Amino acid sequence: MMKFSGWGDPAKAYDLSTRPYLWDFVRSQIGLENKLDPPGPRPEDIAVPEPRRDDALLAQLTHALGAEKICTDAPTRLLHAYGKSYRDLLRARAGHVPRPPDLVLFPTSRADLEAILAAAVEHRAQVVPFGGGTNICGGVEPDPSRPGVALTVSLRRMNRLLALDPVARTARIEAGALGPELEAALNAQGFSLGHFPDSFEFSTLGGWLATRSAGMQSDAYGKIENMVVSLTLCTPRGTLVTARVPRSSTGPDLAQLAVGSEGTLGIIAEAEMRIHPVGMREHRGLLVPGFERGIALARALVQGGALPTTTRISNPQETALSFATKSPAQGLAATTAKVFKSYLRHVKKFPLDDACLMIVGFEAASAGELAAQRRATLRVCREFGAVDLGTGVGAKWFAGRYDYPYLRDTVMDRGGMADVTETSATWDVLPGLYRDVKERVHAHLRRGEFPGYVGCHLSHSYPDGACLYFTFAAARERGRELAQYLETKQLIFEILLRHGATLSHHHAVGYELLPWMPRHLGATGVELLRGAKHAVDPLNLCNPGKLIPGDTPALADYWPPALVNRRPPA
Amino acid sequence: MMKFSGWGDPAKAYDLSTRPYLWDFVRSQIGLENKLDPPGPRPEDIAVPEPRRDDALLAQLTHALGAEKICTDAPTRLLHAYGKSYRDLLRARAGHVPRPPDLVLFPTSRADLEAILAAAVEHRAQVVPFGGGTNICGGVEPDPSRPGVALTVSLRRMNRLLALDPVARTARIEAGALGPELEAALNAQGFSLGHFPDSFEFSTLGGWLATRSAGMQSDAYGKIENMVVSLTLCTPRGTLVTARVPRSSTGPDLAQLAVGSEGTLGIIAEAEMRIHPVGMREHRGLLVPGFERGIALARALVQGGALPTTTRISNPQETALSFATKSPAQGLAATTAKVFKSYLRHVKKFPLDDACLMIVGFEAASAGELAAQRRATLRVCREFGAVDLGTGVGAKWFAGRYDYPYLRDTVMDRGGMADVTETSATWDVLPGLYRDVKERVHAHLRRGEFPGYVGCHLSHSYPDGACLYFTFAAARERGRELAQYLETKQLIFEILLRHGATLSHHHAVGYELLPWMPRHLGATGVELLRGAKHAVDPLNLCNPGKLIPGDTPALADYWPPALVNRRPPA
Repeated sequence: MMKFSGWGDPAKAYDLSTRPYLWDFVRSQIGLENKLDPPGPRPEDIAVPEPRRDDALLAQLTHALGAEKICTDAPTRLLHAYGKSYRDLLRARAGHVPRPPDLVLFPTSRADLEAILAAAVEHRAQVVPFGGGTNICGGVEPDPSRPGVALTVSLRRMNRLLALDPVARTARIEAGALGPELEAALNAQGFSLGHFPDSFEFSTLGGWLATRSAGMQSDAYGKIENMVVSLTLCTPRGTLVTARVPRSSTGPDLAQLAVGSEGTLGIIAEAEMRIHPVGMREHRGLLVPGFERGIALARALVQGGALPTTTRISNPQETALSFATKSPAQGLAATTAKVFKSYLRHVKKFPLDDACLMIVGFEAASAGELAAQRRATLRVCREFGAVDLGTGVGAKWFAGRYDYPYLRDTVMDRGGMADVTETSATWDVLPGLYRDVKERVHAHLRRGEFPGYVGCHLSHSYPDGACLYFTFAAARERGRELAQYLETKQLIFEILLRHGATLSHHHAVGYELLPWMPRHLGATGVELLRGAKHAVDPLNLCNPGKLIPGDTPALADYWPPALVNRRPPA
Repeated sequence: MMKFSGWGDPAKAYDLSTRPYLWDFVRSQIGLENKLDPPGPRPEDIAVPEPRRDDALLAQLTHALGAEKICTDAPTRLLHAYGKSYRDLLRARAGHVPRPPDLVLFPTSRADLEAILAAAVEHRAQVVPFGGGTNICGGVEPDPSRPGVALTVSLRRMNRLLALDPVARTARIEAGALGPELEAALNAQGFSLGHFPDSFEFSTLGGWLATRSAGMQSDAYGKIENMVVSLTLCTPRGTLVTARVPRSSTGPDLAQLAVGSEGTLGIIAEAEMRIHPVGMREHRGLLVPGFERGIALARALVQGGALPTTTRISNPQETALSFATKSPAQGLAATTAKVFKSYLRHVKKFPLDDACLMIVGFEAASAGELAAQRRATLRVCREFGAVDLGTGVGAKWFAGRYDYPYLRDTVMDRGGMADVTETSATWDVLPGLYRDVKERVHAHLRRGEFPGYVGCHLSHSYPDGACLYFTFAAARERGRELAQYLETKQLIFEILLRHGATLSHHHAVGYELLPWMPRHLGATGVELLRGAKHAVDPLNLCNPGKLIPGDTPALADYWPPALVNRRPPA
């Protein structure tokens, strides 16, 4: 399990000592000193409320599952109380955990899941599926407004590779497999799923499916919804097993109804996924002269058929952060860097202040294919004035690609607010959308000489558009931490809606986006979702309060009505 | 409009006079002489039942739409009574039209559609959307078991290209645009949708979307569901407009719930589709030594990343039919053909009896790219022993690619049964599935020395599997024409289910597949579909009886219960 009040491996922290430039950069952006806040309570000192008891339910579950799959102890309940959103971490650090699950269950089979749902129906318990707990939109906490017992169902003991077909290149995998677990099992047979979200080390296949996740290689292999051949969804009204076929015209694709359902229709037990042979990889860094140029470059790559496996372009502020995390160069390396920078500025007339770091990743079956991909990509990059920095920068990015979430803890430890929001829009919309978010969030976060941090990278490209991934940070407003955060999020969501962009490209809805979902989906869209849910979960037991507007009063607990209902920022 | 009792352009018929080998081949397969049956009644002689009247409904519609968008005349109602399934043509040719629509409406806007649905709700009328009328699964006829008026809504006056964005490469198109109409409008701006189903000349964007259609270039551009950016679906409970974004993780993809809904959720008014620049094209023919070798070849192409825009491989019987449709070669051409055949048989040891015609199509922005595609494809083809026949065969196939549906009429005119069924399955399943269908349908159709015709081609390839498209024909059993047809279909559906293949890859469900849908979807799948439908169409007015099991008693009218409930063929 991850830390309770922070990201990732309890033994790991973001190391400032090897990054001497980093905090100066942070200070220059958000005016925060490198000084630790007093620590909050340790997990073992947090007062976890007694679990609500339902002896008949417990007896039925014990009979069906066996006692060894049922946990009622406070530490386990605490660890399954929250995901990892900024709000979750604020509450965890304050030791504020008023509604943890009452029971945490560890099923090992589809039959166990069916038994859990049957017991939940009989005893009217809410059921919250829990994979790795990395969710950052309020998707894995019990609905505090519901009476009765809250069952959190950890899928972590369902983590096996069940079958692999090398002819069809498909693998049947249980939903609770963590990224590294399933990749190791597939790699052992020469295959990979090719799904590497930032949360890869701590998130599960089921979580990816439930949230329509995207990974660093999704440009090549698709988002998780594009990799599903079939899936098994256990609902209170029975289990759905969709046909294992490549395509179908037998009505709407029900697997696509389950993907993204965030536990509101039931629990995903397993899925048959498309896999592909492990190939050779290479990552390179480039500098692109300006972010809007970068957007145009990404579009040229994907529309020209030369899109690499990974194409990631950071805006200048994120690029500056990235270079600020470097270890200091010494001796010849430092001299070379200085000369190269001077060459760029004076000979190439490269606008270094607008420099955008671009990472491209290739994957191919052979060195020849890899070279062909590289050639095609770099040719387009050069046409847009991008300068190749080589594989060193790429390798460094690759090595540290899962580390950024740790940096949020480092900033929070020192009194900062830091979080992310991501969207997608069509190419015609992206430049104006980017400018609008950038300018208006800066205007919102700026404090005197400190502009606030609004990083952005283009993370996924499609023929018709791309995903923009924003990171924002500021010094925390003491005493109104949550309001500060929600106001920033609200500002961004309003801008997204105004531009016709989506509220989320790959992080999902949970409680976080719920107030904006009626406007995003429209009333008919909401009714369709509710209709599907009520068909299989008429008692609204499955992850209540998430995703689907109108199913719970719990929203007011998350989003103060005064904030949601106030006049949208002009 | 198409012919009432046959396929396509009323001025066009399949020409046997230029194809002197064709009927000999047909006779050898199904024992049918080239002798016309007595013609059935002309459309103008068919007794069309008087329309059911609802004056209040008519007044409301007239007020909302204007009288010029409302047709009650018998010829128009007749032309909208059926699609083009074998069963439809049997009934049309017999002049048996007991339940045509009562009113045929020709809306010109989304507002018209909303007014029609409001009137339908108020007056409890069923609503059947009608595009080009090419449906071959019983998807466009009124439900005869329903009381009240049946409104058929033709989308044909909603056929405009509304907007085209060359940056995002998307186009907003009204649902009633026929293939040639929308391609002409897009081509004028240098773009193409790239969707070319066999029915292209007579089918509409809305019909493609409602049925999850596939086209001849879908290997490159995806099935229609993969081309949708957003769509507008008018339902009795309001209109859904999905976000115009490339990808989203804001819950299940509701556009994907509308795509394939076959009118049961409402009427698709328009859609924003991905488009691409018109490129250069080339088609080539090849001969592959055996159909299972062909399956392996297609797999190697798609899994190796060398899949052309079109990859179509016919089994030996379909290949023989294809060559039997040739005009006779004369002079030098005849000699060359003879020499080439002898060379193949004796020098290359090519098993001509197992020869499978393969058509590959390329599309690229430049001659260089086209050549690269061709090189990569032909290299893999050679590895599998395929012999290149060049572009002449490809061009001939391309020129006649929309003609095969006319051949069904020619066969029916002479007392034959001819129809199709298509499926998809994963690569590991396909060879056994093919053998099973082939052997068992032959066993079913064989009459003495005549084996019956069971053609098959692999029409679409995916990394995990492919679509097999079967065509079957036999002499008609006089007096039990429908039973003969349904027994054959039943046999095939049972085999598909046994192998875990889908009941349809791109033709949809309608009435045709309904009895098998509960086994295909499972009870939970059926409940999910019903839940979505009831959320937006609680009165079950939208195309009742199609797609969703259990919503109508009309099934018994289509499928005799004695047939559906009998013991499945062993």
